[in-house]
Parts: sequence; structure tokens; C-alpha cells
Amino acid sequence: WIRSYCMSLRPLGMEPPPERELLCIFGTGDLGRSLGQRLLQTGYRVVYGSRRPHSCGPLPPGAQVMSHTEAAQLAAVVIVCVHREHYDFMEEVAPQLKGKVLVDVSNNSKKGLYPESNAEFLQSLIPAASVVKAFNTVSAWSLQNGPSDAHRQVFLCGDKAEAKQAVRELATRLGLSVLDRGSLSAAREVEDFPLQLFPEWRLPLCIATGLTAFFFFYLLIRDVIYAYVEQDKDISFRIMVSLANKVFPIVSLIMLSLCYLPGVMAAILQLYRGTKYRRFPDWLDHWMLCRKQLGLLALGFAFLHVLYTLLIPIRYYVRYKVTAHTVLQIRENKTAVFDTTSAWRTDSYFSVGILGFALYVLLGITSLPSVSNALSWREFSFVQSKLGHLTLLLCTLHTYLYGWNKFLRPSTYKWCTPPGYMLCLVVPSVVLVLKLLMVLPCVDRSLGRIRQGWERTGPEGEGTKPLMA
Amino acid sequence: WIRSYCMSLRPLGMEPPPERELLCIFGTGDLGRSLGQRLLQTGYRVVYGSRRPHSCGPLPPGAQVMSHTEAAQLAAVVIVCVHREHYDFMEEVAPQLKGKVLVDVSNNSKKGLYPESNAEFLQSLIPAASVVKAFNTVSAWSLQNGPSDAHRQVFLCGDKAEAKQAVRELATRLGLSVLDRGSLSAAREVEDFPLQLFPEWRLPLCIATGLTAFFFFYLLIRDVIYAYVEQDKDISFRIMVSLANKVFPIVSLIMLSLCYLPGVMAAILQLYRGTKYRRFPDWLDHWMLCRKQLGLLALGFAFLHVLYTLLIPIRYYVRYKVTAHTVLQIRENKTAVFDTTSAWRTDSYFSVGILGFALYVLLGITSLPSVSNALSWREFSFVQSKLGHLTLLLCTLHTYLYGWNKFLRPSTYKWCTPPGYMLCLVVPSVVLVLKLLMVLPCVDRSLGRIRQGWERTGPEGEGTKPLMA
Amino acid sequence: WIRSYCMSLRPLGMEPPPERELLCIFGTGDLGRSLGQRLLQTGYRVVYGSRRPHSCGPLPPGAQVMSHTEAAQLAAVVIVCVHREHYDFMEEVAPQLKGKVLVDVSNNSKKGLYPESNAEFLQSLIPAASVVKAFNTVSAWSLQNGPSDAHRQVFLCGDKAEAKQAVRELATRLGLSVLDRGSLSAAREVEDFPLQLFPEWRLPLCIATGLTAFFFFYLLIRDVIYAYVEQDKDISFRIMVSLANKVFPIVSLIMLSLCYLPGVMAAILQLYRGTKYRRFPDWLDHWMLCRKQLGLLALGFAFLHVLYTLLIPIRYYVRYKVTAHTVLQIRENKTAVFDTTSAWRTDSYFSVGILGFALYVLLGITSLPSVSNALSWREFSFVQSKLGHLTLLLCTLHTYLYGWNKFLRPSTYKWCTPPGYMLCLVVPSVVLVLKLLMVLPCVDRSLGRIRQGWERTGPEGEGTKPLMA
Repeated sequence: WIRSYCMSLRPLGMEPPPERELLCIFGTGDLGRSLGQRLLQTGYRVVYGSRRPHSCGPLPPGAQVMSHTEAAQLAAVVIVCVHREHYDFMEEVAPQLKGKVLVDVSNNSKKGLYPESNAEFLQSLIPAASVVKAFNTVSAWSLQNGPSDAHRQVFLCGDKAEAKQAVRELATRLGLSVLDRGSLSAAREVEDFPLQLFPEWRLPLCIATGLTAFFFFYLLIRDVIYAYVEQDKDISFRIMVSLANKVFPIVSLIMLSLCYLPGVMAAILQLYRGTKYRRFPDWLDHWMLCRKQLGLLALGFAFLHVLYTLLIPIRYYVRYKVTAHTVLQIRENKTAVFDTTSAWRTDSYFSVGILGFALYVLLGITSLPSVSNALSWREFSFVQSKLGHLTLLLCTLHTYLYGWNKFLRPSTYKWCTPPGYMLCLVVPSVVLVLKLLMVLPCVDRSLGRIRQGWERTGPEGEGTKPLMA
Repeated sequence: WIRSYCMSLRPLGMEPPPERELLCIFGTGDLGRSLGQRLLQTGYRVVYGSRRPHSCGPLPPGAQVMSHTEAAQLAAVVIVCVHREHYDFMEEVAPQLKGKVLVDVSNNSKKGLYPESNAEFLQSLIPAASVVKAFNTVSAWSLQNGPSDAHRQVFLCGDKAEAKQAVRELATRLGLSVLDRGSLSAAREVEDFPLQLFPEWRLPLCIATGLTAFFFFYLLIRDVIYAYVEQDKDISFRIMVSLANKVFPIVSLIMLSLCYLPGVMAAILQLYRGTKYRRFPDWLDHWMLCRKQLGLLALGFAFLHVLYTLLIPIRYYVRYKVTAHTVLQIRENKTAVFDTTSAWRTDSYFSVGILGFALYVLLGITSLPSVSNALSWREFSFVQSKLGHLTLLLCTLHTYLYGWNKFLRPSTYKWCTPPGYMLCLVVPSVVLVLKLLMVLPCVDRSLGRIRQGWERTGPEGEGTKPLMA
Repeated sequence: WIRSYCMSLRPLGMEPPPERELLCIFGTGDLGRSLGQRLLQTGYRVVYGSRRPHSCGPLPPGAQVMSHTEAAQLAAVVIVCVHREHYDFMEEVAPQLKGKVLVDVSNNSKKGLYPESNAEFLQSLIPAASVVKAFNTVSAWSLQNGPSDAHRQVFLCGDKAEAKQAVRELATRLGLSVLDRGSLSAAREVEDFPLQLFPEWRLPLCIATGLTAFFFFYLLIRDVIYAYVEQDKDISFRIMVSLANKVFPIVSLIMLSLCYLPGVMAAILQLYRGTKYRRFPDWLDHWMLCRKQLGLLALGFAFLHVLYTLLIPIRYYVRYKVTAHTVLQIRENKTAVFDTTSAWRTDSYFSVGILGFALYVLLGITSLPSVSNALSWREFSFVQSKLGHLTLLLCTLHTYLYGWNKFLRPSTYKWCTPPGYMLCLVVPSVVLVLKLLMVLPCVDRSLGRIRQGWERTGPEGEGTKPLMA
């Protein structure tokens, strides 16, 4: 079946027009076939090199298939769509590959499997050819379905400029976007791209998990175990919703403030040093690079908090409590007095929370790649800095209003521990106070001058003051 | 008025610098004018060909206008911004168009209006010119406002390589992104692009409509009509919210599982066949291609379910019922006992539902083009496969918890029919069980080998094992 | 410290390969360093010109640093990464810059600081060089982290075509996307890009603020002050949630209808004039250009309305009222009768509102740049026009159902003023009625012909009928 199919796809009598460039592809796997199909569509002629040219499975219509040696002789550029484990056959073809451009598209299934990158290994096998690493981040899927649907970025590296130029033109013709990553020694880095799994999310996720675990156990002790020990009541069912709805907003607020803390710390460091040209400590650099992820996780927790809160009135426990409260009022023949202060407090608390959440969502939307790319830098920094600090302010205010006068009531401090929301107010309050100090005219002016390149320690006047980022 | 306006826009004394290339545009409609304006901005000189060169409406400043014949003589590239219905005038200009590149930008108002594509028709009218189809997916609007705001993708097809190269350069200079679609015979496909209306959404929308209709009538009979017939109660008002809030989650869960079912089926097929090189049946291919749409529709239904659920406590009916329940409790002097199991069950049910919905939303966000493009393939498959199956698991668990012990109570099965949520549990349960089998080490290992190119039926060892996609 | 660091980064013995092009960068600030690093990565050789070549801070490894004069002599292209305030040193280097391409990347900190653009000023300082404005919209950050993360759009302008071509190639090689903005006189506009702060949002934000303020005070008078004056009750606590939840939906509905009103007005104008070739009045043009922003703000207000509404049952005031109502019912020994009409009305009202909001969100999602770019024009106009008008219809219906029979009750009109929601129904009702008229077959046909280029006033038959946009 396979053979006849393969044969039927090879047009025998039809010669492609002579002006079209011929490319050779080694390997007839998914990527080889998709790449060949796309190249044929773009107007190239394609010849496949296969060890079994007569039983190689379905190939794109218009392509020819022959042995590796024959195929390599015909083209100036050979695209190697073969797993590294099978590179050994390449040595047999070495004489035919002399002076040719070899494009290595391979990836590994794990990081650190081999001492050198696949592309460098290929270059060492065929020293007479010019190896260029490319296309490894492009998938067979996106080649078949047009790159507008997915990854159109091709990373290129290689040691020969002309070889790179040839591959660059090839990729551009396929409608892909090319980014030069330098010499072949960068191939390892390029080969690691498809293997990475959210590297920039790791630290924020650890922080989120740590905070969630800490506050979960802290509140479990304060609420459930306290009630069990001191009042002998089993309220463990509260874990599922009530406790979760205390942990999530706490973690959300702390993470939001952690997202703005490094900016304030960097400003203080710049003010203290009097220059912006000294590097920040590594931990601060690392922290600043994951602010977006911290903020998005904070938004996720806030979203959960909103859902849990809106769900309150349909909970069995809440309905039971409300009914029991009404029944008690009747039986004891009491009339509850409407307390305007409580109405003001709870309504303000909700209102501020809703506005804070709406701004939160706005920040999340502007951090979508396509939205943030459409913003100018002034717009982006306005949203992320001005609106971001306003969000932090509203959310902190929301928590203070929630606490209200409980801060002073001794009964709040069960077993001498403060409630979770009081603990979580520490970081945001510090960030807001520091930010307030930064906005004072005198501090703001010094900071502005430092950020434009002025240096306190360099009074000798330098003509070429650097541009702002 | 028109004439004077047109004249005032033609700069008489000012000659554009000689090094700039001159292009000719036939037709002074919206697209012709916008294209001309953009070309002028990019540094080209532009001459319009018009049948009425002295009354052609406002043209971009800097452009000249003359008769078709005069205009065609001046330029090597002629862009035909004219409806196909008016191509007849082209034959008169044929002598002047010999050897020139003709760019056909036209679209039709409907599919299948003509036997051949507009570009092929133009080529048949002027056989001595090289017709290239291009720019038809770019709008006048996006040309005027910069392509960063909208469609910057230009699809190109044509038979002459040099002609295509000239148009490719032109488009690249305009800041557009070019994708070569092959020879002029692909023009029909390119001309159909702007006319398509969500082709990949059609099947998922049909499934969603079908499921919604089926479960609506099923539940209408079981709930409203049953109550009317058996208990003689008119609860038809429940259609608007209660019934909707039963139908939407059911359809959502079924569609989410339909989104993961084809993946499991494909894996079984690959295991059974022992190779990944045989094509899947067409229906399975089609199904797999619309998984994203199935998932997004499922998210839409889940979103409606969340809104409807959160709205429950402010409904008149619910408030009435709660009050009546309290009043009854007082009048009969009963005291409801707090049931911890119920509290656990409902809270778990809500909590699992909320977490499931949050993951659902996360899946939706990662399927936004700009987000999914920023992910590596490993990241994308982690989110869509691992997190996707976790979402399905949580949502199925949410439904099982909702059912709880009602599965065993005979009174649940009115008129011997199971409730809707039991019916809807069939598909997700099957998907989850099959997926669980796939994850077993032995099955997972075989599948992994097959997906890396190993074939059970081909033991003779092939050097060029294909790459994973 | 700085000196030794800088020295250690200059590789002394290592000569870069000769075939690589050498570029000169003036200025060692953030942008200069990032650009240099990226150029080195891409395979260029880079030499920095600095006034203090021996104490210029850390430079990317592989770059050389020397005096301005020395550096300028070596390269054909000089990138000037220096603030305009320091351009005075350029005159000293003028002899070495003769015939070279000078790339001006500078931005100003404010609009309108100088009479001419920075690039034109640089050209006037060095008339013998060819100044090209470029890279000013690209940030140091995005250069360091790869342009896929942010702004890859480079705007180019300059008077010499070859100079522009050289810079275009440079930018393309860096993986950036180039858009030609014409001659150097466009530099001012290009320099204003990074300074703009949501220009297209200004009008919609003003409208939103104005409407919110008006309805806030209107409802404050009608609700709170009326109750205080006529019934001597202090219900000022209602401002935080109840009043906000009346103002937000009102503003949302009006802004949504304002988003569709200009389209209807434009169609009427075209029908009246009998042509589409006459420009719309400026105010209408301006209005039509900010429809997207109007719609997104309307969605924001609708989102707030949904959150405020779902929050209702957990408000202290509402809980108090519900309990008081139950208590009263018991004490007066009355039994409330279930009113099926009320149940129908409120449920329909909620259901229509939820569906309207879901469509609203769908419209918002499709207006995300990456989503709308993936749509064909037919799809985009289907969503924004058909679904948009459906959303308006559902939201208007939602408001009418909310009003129900209160339109006829005199007690609704406190102090002879209609409630806010009645006022806000005027605009959407007008838009919907006009849109309904537009959809009538006869009107639709005329409009269709006009939009395809037909003109009532021009009966003399024109061959080159323009294309639809």
C-alpha cells in the first residue's frame, strides 16, 4: 500500500520549471514532509534523500525521492530532518556534502542528553560543509497550516555568513520571521528553546505555593483547630470554601505587592548609589524579570476570591445560618436595628474591592502580548505603573475596610495570633508608603535625573549622555 | 466640486525625485486610493489609470491621473483595483500591458460566481502579461491606518517567478508579510479567503446547537411537563433560568469531553495499527482540527453556567422559596438541624467547580493567538493536554458531587428517565477512563515509541527515523 | 571599578572575521548598549564612539570603544544614540561624517520642546550626511529580550533612498519589522509616537466621565436627596453600591448605543447624498474612529454592573431587609402569594441580561488585536455588526424588562423626573429603530449599491467602478 501510494505521488513526466531552485531534504518524517510541502508551495523544487527511497511512505505531491547520495549531489542546500541518533549515516554521504549548506533542524527529547549541541555534532561529522541551525522551533503543524496560526519565529545560528544568508532567505520566503542568534556555539541554547517549560513562571509559582501553604495552615489552626480545641465545635467543612476564600485574597494581595516591591527597591538603590549604571544585585534582577508572572498569578488568586465570594449566598451553611438567625429573632421577639455605619462600611468595602478587581483585570488584559505590543512605551508604563499602584492601593484599602475596627478588638487575636488579613497587610502597606515617598517632588526629581543618565559620582561632564530606555 | 478637488490634488510643477520607482494603479476606488496613498508614503511614484481622468474624485496628494493607456505605458507593474465585472476595458489596453506585471487585487461578493478565478480570467484576457494575485486580503482600512492594526498577511500566487518576486518586494516594502501560495491555479483559493465565514466553527456550532436543543427538550419534558402532568403544577417560568442553568453546564461538559475524545481515539488507533504513518479516517482528522473551537464553545457555556448560578440568590422565585421555608419553620415550630455532610458536600461541589472553571478560563486564555504563539511547543502541549485533562477531571468530579447519592434514589428517575447531568457524565467518564489507561507505563511507552517514528510492522531498520512534530 | 570592567570587556587580540560589516554607535547609554549587543549577536562588528572611551561603563563583549572621530571613520553607518541636548559635539565630528548614513534614534521627553524634529536638527548640523530616523519606537528592553516579546515595529523616514535602504536592511536583519513613513519631514510625527498617551481613548473617556457624572448627580437627587427631603430618611449609604449599580449599566448602555449610532448616521448620510465619495463631516469621522474604544469602555461598565449585581445578596442592607421582611410576614401572620408573572418577568430580565453580557464579552474578545487579526474581513464585520447589534438589542430589552410596567405608574416619576434607566433607553431605541429601517429590503439594496461605488448623481457610466473596501 505504502509503495504504490508513494509512487503515485511522484510525477514522472512533469519537469518543474528550470528557474526554480532545488532543495534537498534528508528524512521523510513529519517535519521533513511538512517542510517539503511548504517549500513546493512556495515555488522550490524538492528532492528527498531516504535510505529506502522506494518505501518511504506518502510524500507531498511534486517531490522526488532518491538515495541520500544522489539527492545530496543535486542541491546546494541540504535540510537534515533526521534524529541525532541516526546522524551516523551522514558520514557515508560526506563527500557529496562538501561545500554545501547543511541545515540542522533537530531537537532532543531532553536537555543535557549530549555533551555538544546537535548542530555542532553535525559540523564535526562533516567539517567540509557549513552547518546552520534553523527551523527547530517551527512545528510540522504550523508549516502545514500557515505560520499566521503559530510560531513563525526561526532562530538561526551558524559560523558561515553566506550559509546563514541562504537559510535566512529560504525562511523569509516561507513567510517565517528570522532572528539571528550568532555563531554555531549558540546552537545549544536554540535547541533548548522547544524544551523549556515556563522557566520564568517557576519562581512566582514557588512563591504562590509557599504563601498558599503557609496561610492555609495558619488559618486552619486559627479557625478550625481553635474552634475544635477551645469551643469543641467541628467546623472542618469550612475548609472547602470559607478557608479557601480567606487564603486566596491574602496570597493575591501579597503577590500583587511583591510585584511592585522590587521597583521601589531598585529606585531606593539608585538613589542611594546616585547612578543607574551599576548593576542591581542578581536576586533583584531576577525578581524584576518575573514581575509580570507575579502579577498574573495574583490576578488568578483574585479571580478565585471573587468567585468564592459571589458564591457565598448559595452555600448550604450560609442559608442555614440566615434562616436560623431569622427564626431566632422571631422566637426571642427581638427587632434588629438597622446600623447605617455597618451599611456604609460593608458597601464601601465591596465597592472598593470591585473597582480594585476591575483594574486588576485591566492590568491583566494589557499584559496580553498582542495588547502590550500595541501600546507605546509611555502608555505601557502608565498602565503598569500608575494603574498598577492604584490597584494595589484599592486592594489594600479593601482589606483595611474589611478589618475596620477589629484591629483594636482583643478577641480578634485568638491564641495571640493576628488574623490572616492583618498579616498580609504588612507588605502592601510598606510598598505604598515607600512609593508615596518616591512621589514626593524632591525625591522624584533626583530619581528622574538619575534615570536620564546623571551620575552623582561623575561630576566631570560627559558629552554623550545616554538615552532613556 | 469633484473636478476642482481632483485637480487641486495634482501637483503640477513638482516632479518626484527620479530614483523612485513608478507604479500604475487602474481604478480610483477605495482600495486603489488607499494603496496609492501608502505607496506614495513608502517612496514610490504613483500614476492612476482612469476612464475619466478629469472627474475621478479625490486622489492622494502627489499622485497623477491619466487614461489607462497612457498610465500603463509608464510603469512595469500595473495594479488592477477594478471589479471583475469591468475587466472588459482591459482588452483595449492589452498592447500596452505586454510583458508587464499585472497585480490582480479583486475579490468577488460571493463564492462560485464565475467558473474560473478573477486572476486566471485576467491572465486569459491579457496572455502577454504576467498576472500575480496579491493584496486581496488586505483592506483599504488597514492600508490607511498602518498594518499593525490589522491584517498584514498578503497571499501571493502567480506563474512567473520574477513577476512574483517584484510583487513580493513591493509588499514587503509596504510593511506587509508575504506568503507564497504557489501558481495562479491557487488564485481561486486565495480569492475565497475574504469570503469565508468561520468555516472551522461550523461543525462545533452544529454540535453545540444540537446538544442544546436535545437537552432543552429532554429537561423540559422531565421537569416542566412532568410537573404539569403528574403534579398539576405550572412551573413554566423555570424555563428562563433554572432550565437554562441545567442545559448550559451539561452541554459544556459534553463539549469539553468531545474536545479530548479524538486525541484518545487517535492514540488507540495508533496503538492498534502500530504506526503513526497511516492517515486517520477523515472524520477523525476533521474532528481533531476543530478541538480548539469545541473547547472555546464549551468555555462559553461554562461562563453562562457560572453567571446563571451566581444569579440564583437574587431571583424572585428563590427569595420567595427561602422566605416561605423560614415562615414554615416558625409556624410549625420546627428547628432544622445542621447537617455537616451536606455542608461538606455542597462546599466541595462548589469549590471543585470554581477551580475547574478557573482552569477552563486559563485554557481559554492560552488559546488566544498572541498567547499561544509565545509558548514553546512543550509549554503549549503541557497546558492543552495536562491542564486540559485536569479541567475535565475537575468538571466531571463537580458533576458527580452534584449528583452525590441521587444516583441510587429511585425518585430521581422520573418517567424512568435519568436526569440530564447523569446522561452528560457518560462521555467525560469514558474519556477519563481511556486517558487513564493511556497513562499506564506500558501503554505510555509503546505510544511514545510509535510517536517517535517506530513502526511495529517495519522491523527492517530504517536509518532516517523521522523527527517528532 | 568602572574602568577595569570596561577594559576587561574589550577583547584585545581577537579580530572579528573580516566579512562582517562594521557599524558605529555614538553613545554608550542603555539603548546604545542594547543595540550594540543585538548587532553583535546578529553578526555585525560594532565600534562605540565615546567622549571618554576609557571610562564608559560596561559594554557588550566583543565591541570596541574609541573616540567619536576614530569610530566615525571606520563605518559607513553611524547610529546616534545620544540625547538631542548633546548633539553639539557632532559638529566637531562633521568632517568624518561626510557621505555617511546617520541614524537618529532619539526621543524627547515632551512634545513640542523644539521647533524642528531631532532628526531634522541633526541633518541641519551635518548637511553632508544622510540622516535617517529609525529605531526610536524600539526599546532597550525589547532589543535585549528579543522582539517577539514587544514592539518590533520600526518606523523609518529619511530623504535619501539608499540610506533608508541600508537602515531597512539593518532593521530586518535584527528581526524587526520596518514601515516606511516617507521623507525626513515626517520625523516629528515619528518622534511623537513614543510620547503619545492613548490619544484615541481621550474622547470616549470624556464621554464616559461626563455621562457618569451626570447620571450620578441625577440619581443622587432623585433617590437620596428625594428620600431625605420628602420622607426624611437618610439612605446616603446607598451611594456606594445601589447608586453605582444604577449609574454603571446606564452609562454602559448609552455608550454601547453611541458605538453603533455613527454607523447608522453614516448610512443615512450616504443614502441622502446618493454617493459614498463625499467625505463625512469631521466630527462623524472622529466619532467613527473611536467606536472600538467606546465599545470597550461600555464593556468595562457592564462588567462592573455584573459584579455589583451579583454582590447584592451578601450586602448587609439586603440581608437586613430580607430578614425584616420575613419577620414582618410572621408577625402580621400574612402569607405572600407566589406571583408567576413576577417570576417570569425577573427571570426573563436576568436571562436576557446574561446573554447580552456574554455577547458583550465575545465582542470584547474579538477586538483583541491578535484575535481580530486572525479574522477575515467578512468575519470581523459579522461579529462587530451583526453580533454587535444583537448585543445592543438584548441589553435594551433587558432594560425594558427591568422597567416593565413602571413606565405607566405615576409614582415612578418622583419630582416629575423619569428614572435613570428610562432616560438611557432613548439613544439605544433610536439606534435600533434606525437600524431596523436600514435592514428593510429596499433601503438595504440602495445602500448596498452605493457602497459598491454606484452614484446617484453620476449617470454617465464609468468603466472602472471601484472595489469595495
